[in-house]
Amino acid sequence: MNHFILDNVHIITTNKEQRVLKQHYVEVKNGIIQEIAKTPIPKNKEAPVFNYQGKWILPGMYNTHGHTPMSLLRGAADDVPLNRWLEQHIWPREALLNEERVKAGTSLALLEMIKSGTVAYLDMYHLHMDRVFELVMQSGLKAVLSRGMIGFGSKRDLESKLTSACDMAKTWTDAGDSNVKGMLFPHAPYTCPPDFLKDVVEKAHQFKLPLGTHLAETKTEVIDHKKKYNKTPVSHLNELGFFDQPAILTHLVHAENDDLSLLKNKPVSISHNPMSNAKLGSGIAPIPEMLDSGLSIGLGTDSTASNNNLDMFEEMRFAALLQKANQTNPALIPAETVFDMATINGAKMLGFSEHGIMQEGAPADFIMIDSEAAHLQPETNMFSHIVYAANGQDVTDVFINGRPIMKDRELQTLDEEKIRFEANACFKDLEYEFKNTP
Amino acid sequence: MNHFILDNVHIITTNKEQRVLKQHYVEVKNGIIQEIAKTPIPKNKEAPVFNYQGKWILPGMYNTHGHTPMSLLRGAADDVPLNRWLEQHIWPREALLNEERVKAGTSLALLEMIKSGTVAYLDMYHLHMDRVFELVMQSGLKAVLSRGMIGFGSKRDLESKLTSACDMAKTWTDAGDSNVKGMLFPHAPYTCPPDFLKDVVEKAHQFKLPLGTHLAETKTEVIDHKKKYNKTPVSHLNELGFFDQPAILTHLVHAENDDLSLLKNKPVSISHNPMSNAKLGSGIAPIPEMLDSGLSIGLGTDSTASNNNLDMFEEMRFAALLQKANQTNPALIPAETVFDMATINGAKMLGFSEHGIMQEGAPADFIMIDSEAAHLQPETNMFSHIVYAANGQDVTDVFINGRPIMKDRELQTLDEEKIRFEANACFKDLEYEFKNTP
Repeated sequence: MNHFILDNVHIITTNKEQRVLKQHYVEVKNGIIQEIAKTPIPKNKEAPVFNYQGKWILPGMYNTHGHTPMSLLRGAADDVPLNRWLEQHIWPREALLNEERVKAGTSLALLEMIKSGTVAYLDMYHLHMDRVFELVMQSGLKAVLSRGMIGFGSKRDLESKLTSACDMAKTWTDAGDSNVKGMLFPHAPYTCPPDFLKDVVEKAHQFKLPLGTHLAETKTEVIDHKKKYNKTPVSHLNELGFFDQPAILTHLVHAENDDLSLLKNKPVSISHNPMSNAKLGSGIAPIPEMLDSGLSIGLGTDSTASNNNLDMFEEMRFAALLQKANQTNPALIPAETVFDMATINGAKMLGFSEHGIMQEGAPADFIMIDSEAAHLQPETNMFSHIVYAANGQDVTDVFINGRPIMKDRELQTLDEEKIRFEANACFKDLEYEFKNTP
Repeated sequence: MNHFILDNVHIITTNKEQRVLKQHYVEVKNGIIQEIAKTPIPKNKEAPVFNYQGKWILPGMYNTHGHTPMSLLRGAADDVPLNRWLEQHIWPREALLNEERVKAGTSLALLEMIKSGTVAYLDMYHLHMDRVFELVMQSGLKAVLSRGMIGFGSKRDLESKLTSACDMAKTWTDAGDSNVKGMLFPHAPYTCPPDFLKDVVEKAHQFKLPLGTHLAETKTEVIDHKKKYNKTPVSHLNELGFFDQPAILTHLVHAENDDLSLLKNKPVSISHNPMSNAKLGSGIAPIPEMLDSGLSIGLGTDSTASNNNLDMFEEMRFAALLQKANQTNPALIPAETVFDMATINGAKMLGFSEHGIMQEGAPADFIMIDSEAAHLQPETNMFSHIVYAANGQDVTDVFINGRPIMKDRELQTLDEEKIRFEANACFKDLEYEFKNTP
């Protein structure tokens, strides 16, 4: 079905002039939003009409940071210092992630993202990313994928990692049918030596691939970097030319004022992951200051190992409340700001221009919310309810390019039961090996 | 049915030694948890058995702070400075809350609480609390209710408020069948003059009623109090005898170190409302310091006008993450701590001793979670998932005194559709009047 009309819906938009359109219809043709107008539908329309009275339609969520295979590690460890968390809990388990387990973890993450209204996301992992690409294509989600690179190893190792990352990124971009793209994502300045980062930047230029990296996530990282190089990681990356082309900078919790001025007129954007930064005790990113600098900011969940879910509604709310609490200012980061971060900004950052909006001519990537839930009453201010009261479980339907990916909470492209079964089976095997590895 | 067995469940407990009991059964008799033991059930049991394979059972949530009639004002205003929020948005609407609207708002809040797994709560409001009492009794929830008192008005007005508050509290305690109790809740030291607070304390002594108040919610409140009385609100209340009997101190965001030492050995407990404090820009309560002082802390949502939902799962997570972020320490406020705040501590604070635990001899007040949701996979660490991944919509069943209040997400005591309809109708009338009031 490539032409249809959804009637009698309320629409939540990124349009600053009018955030809510009541009792409208949305006409979709060949994957594109053809028309949005007030109900009733004119008589001359010939497409089949579906009455969705009581539903709210909004742009899907764009999750700008994640590591899907790690979904198998949800709850592996919480509430422990970062180095212990990594060294004793996460890395030893990651070392046991074989192809089957990567697939199981990724499938679980894709399932959870669709269920909670995400339509596109960024994925970075160092293992079996080709399998991740295949799973994403099956799921119907849109994505930007990267074969993550940690800059440890011989020169030859690094060359081979970079070649493989470039090859994969180009392949995915070509094969992804505009829905999946590749990027280059060196892990972080503290795990990638400057020479290697220079090579990565060069390849990104050469192949016109966007860049991404984790940056200034913890105070320790920044202190250590300054000790070692006598400059902040941000100014260091700047010198290496990292910001001369589209780049997604993830976390940036400990950005200094000079860092922000430096980033101001660069083609970069920030992936803000407030729940993961909180859970790992990394701190609170200076988002109000970044907004004042005119930086573009999207939201990300990070992996479920440090979140521990992929619910972008919760992430929006947390992002808004955290800053209000931290600076004792309720007017800071209003609902509109986080909503735009999660939708239109995220889409732009991921390279999906004209996405993340409910507008004629935009791809029909949108989600529906069941407005009857108790926590969404009364119908005061739907926009406020989406940000301050809803969560991912309110999502009932997900459309991507006009294709229903989830209908009335039933997955259309993935087998939920099978994914659940395989995730648990793989997890049990992994835990057994983990506990019996000397 | 006063005798039954729920079989094949996983149980989440407040027992520090063993937080998860896998594949157990729970025998309930006359509203009490008679036995908890490992499946299989012994042959000699005669009660009907219900197989709940795949469900997790945990104590229900205890919400230690709220104003249910205000549920009608969800989303009335967000992201504005506190004085503007109160003066332009909340108070003018509250002035229009008649009996019908109070009932509609309260019913909506009760519905939302049951849906999201709350079994008992605290309610403070200044209008039509008798109607609230009736609605609570119909709902099957447990509650501590108070006719709120703001200390403005003539001496005679204040006397009459206090008399009415005492009468109601006594009536509810007598008629509440141990499930509903009364308390005295003067609004706050900045709205109640010292003489009036002294009278309230005296009455609380006389009638053996617990006390509650909002305290040190904002920095301004503390600064102003010190200017006026040359002491902090906490030390002032101490002098007035407020802490010589069971008292629930709500918010306490701006408690000073001397305040905490002063409260240390008093029969008081703290209702921590982190999301409301964040949303209103009040700040971040010194919870780690309070725990170090040995203070007892429960969680509260506050009303939906400043939260904007009543989901205690989200409140647990927010409480844990906020402190980790604020003090850049991931080990702070671990999952166990917030879980106990929301259950056993909250129950104790509300005067429901032996509640909030999954233990033989305790009242059968518990909830069930559907463990099949994508965001609760894999079944690594159910305890972690409850705190760090779940939300109120994962709750499928609610039992109070062994009576099913919600079964498979269907309300057993309340008419969901009617409540939704009335809340919206009342809200529309209220908004019409609000907009047309000169």
